[in-house]
Amino acid sequence: MIELCLIGIGTGNPQHMTLQAIEALNAQDLILIPNKGAGKDDLAGLRRALCTRAIQGDGPKIVEFALPVRDEATKSYRKRVDDWHDAIAEIWWQNITENLPAGGKAGFLVWGDPSLYDSTMRIAERLKKLAEIKLTVIPGITSVQALTAAHAIPINEIGAPFTITTGRRLRENGWPDSADTLVIMLDGDCSFQCIEAQGVEIFWTAYAGMENQISVAGPLADVTDQIIETRAKARAEHGWIMDIYLLRRR
Amino acid sequence: MIELCLIGIGTGNPQHMTLQAIEALNAQDLILIPNKGAGKDDLAGLRRALCTRAIQGDGPKIVEFALPVRDEATKSYRKRVDDWHDAIAEIWWQNITENLPAGGKAGFLVWGDPSLYDSTMRIAERLKKLAEIKLTVIPGITSVQALTAAHAIPINEIGAPFTITTGRRLRENGWPDSADTLVIMLDGDCSFQCIEAQGVEIFWTAYAGMENQISVAGPLADVTDQIIETRAKARAEHGWIMDIYLLRRR
Repeated sequence: MIELCLIGIGTGNPQHMTLQAIEALNAQDLILIPNKGAGKDDLAGLRRALCTRAIQGDGPKIVEFALPVRDEATKSYRKRVDDWHDAIAEIWWQNITENLPAGGKAGFLVWGDPSLYDSTMRIAERLKKLAEIKLTVIPGITSVQALTAAHAIPINEIGAPFTITTGRRLRENGWPDSADTLVIMLDGDCSFQCIEAQGVEIFWTAYAGMENQISVAGPLADVTDQIIETRAKARAEHGWIMDIYLLRRR
Repeated sequence: MIELCLIGIGTGNPQHMTLQAIEALNAQDLILIPNKGAGKDDLAGLRRALCTRAIQGDGPKIVEFALPVRDEATKSYRKRVDDWHDAIAEIWWQNITENLPAGGKAGFLVWGDPSLYDSTMRIAERLKKLAEIKLTVIPGITSVQALTAAHAIPINEIGAPFTITTGRRLRENGWPDSADTLVIMLDGDCSFQCIEAQGVEIFWTAYAGMENQISVAGPLADVTDQIIETRAKARAEHGWIMDIYLLRRR
């Protein structure tokens, strides 16, 4: 019997860890950390540092594995992602059977929360075909909460709905009718440029919750250029960027 | 100068506290806890217990105040809520000036996260009219994440949007076109009964994240009655209920 524990670790600020996440980390037999390869392993390094900080005594065995790359030759986005998840599940399984031949607890550190725009849960589901798997999820602070905390704003207006979506959807489908508040994730293209800026406020944050957090807010028409420039500069400086924003129309 | 710190404390599970929240609690001079009066102070009791657990040494002064009641005679929902927030802000201010005459740090424990369907931030904003206020927000685990963790499900389908809304909106406006996944909060009326159940799955949890958490999931048509009964029974047993659910249509 294998127990998989997906542990939400927040957005990169070690202080985002919950007591529950720290307890869960310490209770694992094995922790698997994906590694993108030399020079790209910033995130693997952050995960290792979180483990070092949180784990007391001997703790679980920590094993890194090389994350496969997506096959960009596969045309369908959905199939490309599905194949990639299959490949990761296979590597998980190799590492689990090798390191836990008699079964046990394998843990995964997930940025933010395992439920939100993250594939770890879908990869874990694949292992259920191979063995008896018990799946546990430990919630974590998401970049959505880190964004609203950075700006000290509520996400919803009183009793009103909001929609969380992706940059791609915003570009392709425009502003959905459902809500006057949108949170946009996974946007590598500053897709806020594609909507009518009149009457819209934006609250933008990069590296939300981390030490080098940067925030810009204001009427969309006024701050669009500033955000694009700030983003490009930060990306060049750090070599990578993660950003998120909230749009509110009146 | 008054610093107000709104501290997200998760959904009632003391293990949801982040290291950041514990640090922030300990850094306050004063913590204000609302109390609904004798026999109704379950939540005040939980807040006190969290403080006792988290605060080391002398720590901040903890002051409870009687939470005013909303004036149900006020017909407009919006005005009723606004007046109520005004009244709470006034009591905050009395307590802050009395306990921190020379300024200092006042902290508030907020269930879940201060950004999500919570009025604490709006009340804090009112104090900015009365004094120089610095407002800090510490993110916390929300009941949305406790819900998806309870069911070990992703909130979104791959690259797809979702909408978070209220029971009232679902009753009044039906299923919004924007998304095939909805999360419904603040629903005292099992409003999932108002939608066409065909092709819809529900993931329902009461007391999400707490010891007495109860979950039911399945095709909406099959589990509607079970949820209504389970909810009524749990409410009668505990004297109160907080529940949340996710709806997904295929």
